[in-house]
Amino acid sequence: RVHEPTETEADQEDPGSARVFSGIQPTGVPHLGNYLGALENWVALQNRYPSVLYSIVDLHSITQPQDPDQLRNNILDMAASLLACGINPEKAILFQQSQVSEHAELSWILGCLTSMPRLRHLPQWKMKSKQKNEGSVGLYTYPVLQAADILLYKSTHVPVGEDQVQHLELAQDLARIFNNHYGELFPEPRALLSSTQKVKSLRNPSAKMSKSDPQTMATITITDSPDDIALKIRRAVTDFISEVTFDPEQRPGVSNLVTIHAAVAKLSVEEALSQASGMDTGAYKGLVSEAVIQRLTPIREELQRLRADRAHLEGLLAQGQLRARELAAPVLAEVRHRVGFC
Amino acid sequence: RVHEPTETEADQEDPGSARVFSGIQPTGVPHLGNYLGALENWVALQNRYPSVLYSIVDLHSITQPQDPDQLRNNILDMAASLLACGINPEKAILFQQSQVSEHAELSWILGCLTSMPRLRHLPQWKMKSKQKNEGSVGLYTYPVLQAADILLYKSTHVPVGEDQVQHLELAQDLARIFNNHYGELFPEPRALLSSTQKVKSLRNPSAKMSKSDPQTMATITITDSPDDIALKIRRAVTDFISEVTFDPEQRPGVSNLVTIHAAVAKLSVEEALSQASGMDTGAYKGLVSEAVIQRLTPIREELQRLRADRAHLEGLLAQGQLRARELAAPVLAEVRHRVGFC
Repeated sequence: RVHEPTETEADQEDPGSARVFSGIQPTGVPHLGNYLGALENWVALQNRYPSVLYSIVDLHSITQPQDPDQLRNNILDMAASLLACGINPEKAILFQQSQVSEHAELSWILGCLTSMPRLRHLPQWKMKSKQKNEGSVGLYTYPVLQAADILLYKSTHVPVGEDQVQHLELAQDLARIFNNHYGELFPEPRALLSSTQKVKSLRNPSAKMSKSDPQTMATITITDSPDDIALKIRRAVTDFISEVTFDPEQRPGVSNLVTIHAAVAKLSVEEALSQASGMDTGAYKGLVSEAVIQRLTPIREELQRLRADRAHLEGLLAQGQLRARELAAPVLAEVRHRVGFC
Repeated sequence: RVHEPTETEADQEDPGSARVFSGIQPTGVPHLGNYLGALENWVALQNRYPSVLYSIVDLHSITQPQDPDQLRNNILDMAASLLACGINPEKAILFQQSQVSEHAELSWILGCLTSMPRLRHLPQWKMKSKQKNEGSVGLYTYPVLQAADILLYKSTHVPVGEDQVQHLELAQDLARIFNNHYGELFPEPRALLSSTQKVKSLRNPSAKMSKSDPQTMATITITDSPDDIALKIRRAVTDFISEVTFDPEQRPGVSNLVTIHAAVAKLSVEEALSQASGMDTGAYKGLVSEAVIQRLTPIREELQRLRADRAHLEGLLAQGQLRARELAAPVLAEVRHRVGFC
């Protein structure tokens, strides 16, 4: 039921009232899959929409056990990474979710409008509670907090991966339920599904590239040195055919390299293949490495520079917090009034 | 597993560090059962403990559908009622839960430490979700918010009815779980079980006196006029034995009148019975009416006076909010630090 706007529809909208919200968990430094799958798109959106908020969603991250020192570091690392990837705090409000109390407050109120069974089949819970048998209340109610994140800013557009579509549907339902109960307040947020190809693991190209992959060779992070990148791509699993073709079903390994190459060099798959013509996969790996290194080097260098100045990062997040609160506070005040608290 | 302190233990404690917390839902004007069962005890506790907080828990109230205008009125009515019953804002911090954002914030964090099955058998959910087949997320997670209410102030003592004992156990568990994970922070709150006899319905003396009773004759509210009180007690269900005795099993109706009489006149059951000697139940009803009227008249008059001045009530709640926040903010700040948010 998620409504994905076509380009035409998006163009016909009043751009002045559009607002984009998205969140990312502070899992440390992003990998290439995060960058190409989501963050590159975030950078594009901040230039296309008049109001954009990106939140480091630390309240969500504690639905799984976290080491406090590492979480603290991961929050600043994620802030630095987003900036290094091109998030511009002049264009997008970058803030830490837990510093804006309105998220938890709205989440409580929306939880009182959500029936228990509504959450039972959502992917977050089904995936993660199975792994550990029985999850926490926080894991179960995660999508309600996510809905609060979105609605708190009256967001109209939410860039989501396909795995988050059902969670966005809950936010849409809750906007509708609230509006029906208490009068029109929230726009129904719409999905912005990104068209980017998914980057796969370099060791097992049938699986997504993932931070939690135990094989370090499977994942390129945005802090990897040129030597690391070259080594990981050299060792990437391909097959025994030397020609470079694009066939994700039959040849997932080499096709993943083509996907990566096209994405980092901003080429179409066809253009990438034509650059590969006459090369065997070994030579092509060198070309892909070069393209990845060229793309990630300025990001890595900027990230190093930003990481060295914690106070600057903390200052930016504090500014983001103030700007987010400025938008959130009047919305929550209106919600509280409509509910009858004041 | 609730540990109920004996008088001796209570005396041995350092009274300087003791803190009492309790909450009441804004269900409108309290009835005689609320007054004798809980509020009278609240008044006594504010004189016995150095630090006392009483919260009008409106976040809890929306776990059931509420009419916003009525909720707004009920909040102020409950504030006026508590003051009229003797809560002294110089001695106890009286505040509205939803105005202190830290409650919802701590509730989210504690929810991440609570396993889903832990809540499945708690009385609030079992009672109310059955009535309406499937309750809301808010109703299910209600006891986690209750634990947050208590722990947010590092409360040491919580006056509870027997129906709330299992909910307090969750607060004790969560204090322990948090302390184990993140280092000692929360005292384990202890139950203060009140010894007051439960006041029963005047129409069905085997059931508790309850606000939701559809028979208006079953319940005496603290705003009832002397005529209403006299009428309701005259019509109270008793039996065909004219003598007044105290035998809650065999003679619940007349025994309920003895309980009420003893409680409002601050007598023992034996003293109440000796005042009744020689009277039939009809004459005794007149005596009980007089005692109830005498006890409730100053409360009713004070309540009328307070209700007429909304601004005064709002001002008192605003003061209470500031004082509650002063205690809550440093505790939540410490929690956030320990968890790794800052």
